Amino acid sequence: MSPEPAAKPAARPCSIAAALQVLGERWALLAVRELFYGNHRFEQIVRNTGAPRDRLTNRLRALEEAGVLERRQYQDRPVRHEYHLTEAGRQLAPVVQALRVWGDRWMVEEPPVTLHHHGHRVDPSWSCRECGEELSRGGLTLEIHSPGWRHDGPVPD
Amino acid sequence: MSPEPAAKPAARPCSIAAALQVLGERWALLAVRELFYGNHRFEQIVRNTGAPRDRLTNRLRALEEAGVLERRQYQDRPVRHEYHLTEAGRQLAPVVQALRVWGDRWMVEEPPVTLHHHGHRVDPSWSCRECGEELSRGGLTLEIHSPGWRHDGPVPD
Repeated sequence: MSPEPAAKPAARPCSIAAALQVLGERWALLAVRELFYGNHRFEQIVRNTGAPRDRLTNRLRALEEAGVLERRQYQDRPVRHEYHLTEAGRQLAPVVQALRVWGDRWMVEEPPVTLHHHGHRVDPSWSCRECGEELSRGGLTLEIHSPGWRHDGPVPD
Repeated sequence: MSPEPAAKPAARPCSIAAALQVLGERWALLAVRELFYGNHRFEQIVRNTGAPRDRLTNRLRALEEAGVLERRQYQDRPVRHEYHLTEAGRQLAPVVQALRVWGDRWMVEEPPVTLHHHGHRVDPSWSCRECGEELSRGGLTLEIHSPGWRHDGPVPD
């Protein structure tokens, strides 16, 4: 047997990286945003995101393959489809909201959209479901389960 | 005066889009992840993300220009810098965590990393700081403040 060629070292096994394989191009999450807003047709998504048509087509196909959205036919002749979020897609709400909160704070003068919750303006917090405490980095520790990548202990500063 | 050429219609004014102008390429958020993990040097970030060096260089420069990270010199000859998150960068923790939660659920078999909080495993929830309720889409309404893009009412399904 001939020896295996030296492989490029693998990147850190990581579900953030896995998520970004699907979502890590801005037109993907902007298409998801439009589906949350109830805009399901290609022309609406093009218009509202400003995405180049060919890149949007590729992104929508990749999101469908990844199970984030599904196509539903709404017209026979010619055949036309709408895009709808699957359960996996709907569970992207916290990702989209976290980006909105951060963008509101750091990237715009005035928030162009506000969310309200039972009548009051939403200021979302990221908290621990078990103890109810808001998650700040203090008190958090990290456990890495992949061989070669161990790091048990506080999240370093 | 000659008439203005017809402009391409503007995309929806949106702080998610503004955030993704900076973050919307997967190497950006994976570099931020490494800084959260305490890996501050270019070679560590290349190794742990698997990013192509030239694209990572561009991303780090863009993140610095956007105020997400800062360079700190740690060596004179030759001059070498480390990258550190600014306050804006540290506030990306919920974005990164929301991607982790989603990736853990939908993109991997077993979470390669777990976070613990005062001894218990973290199951983060996205909740309303005012009333403490977990934010699900029920009860949420949307208010769009940009002219031409109004939509006041429930988040559509």
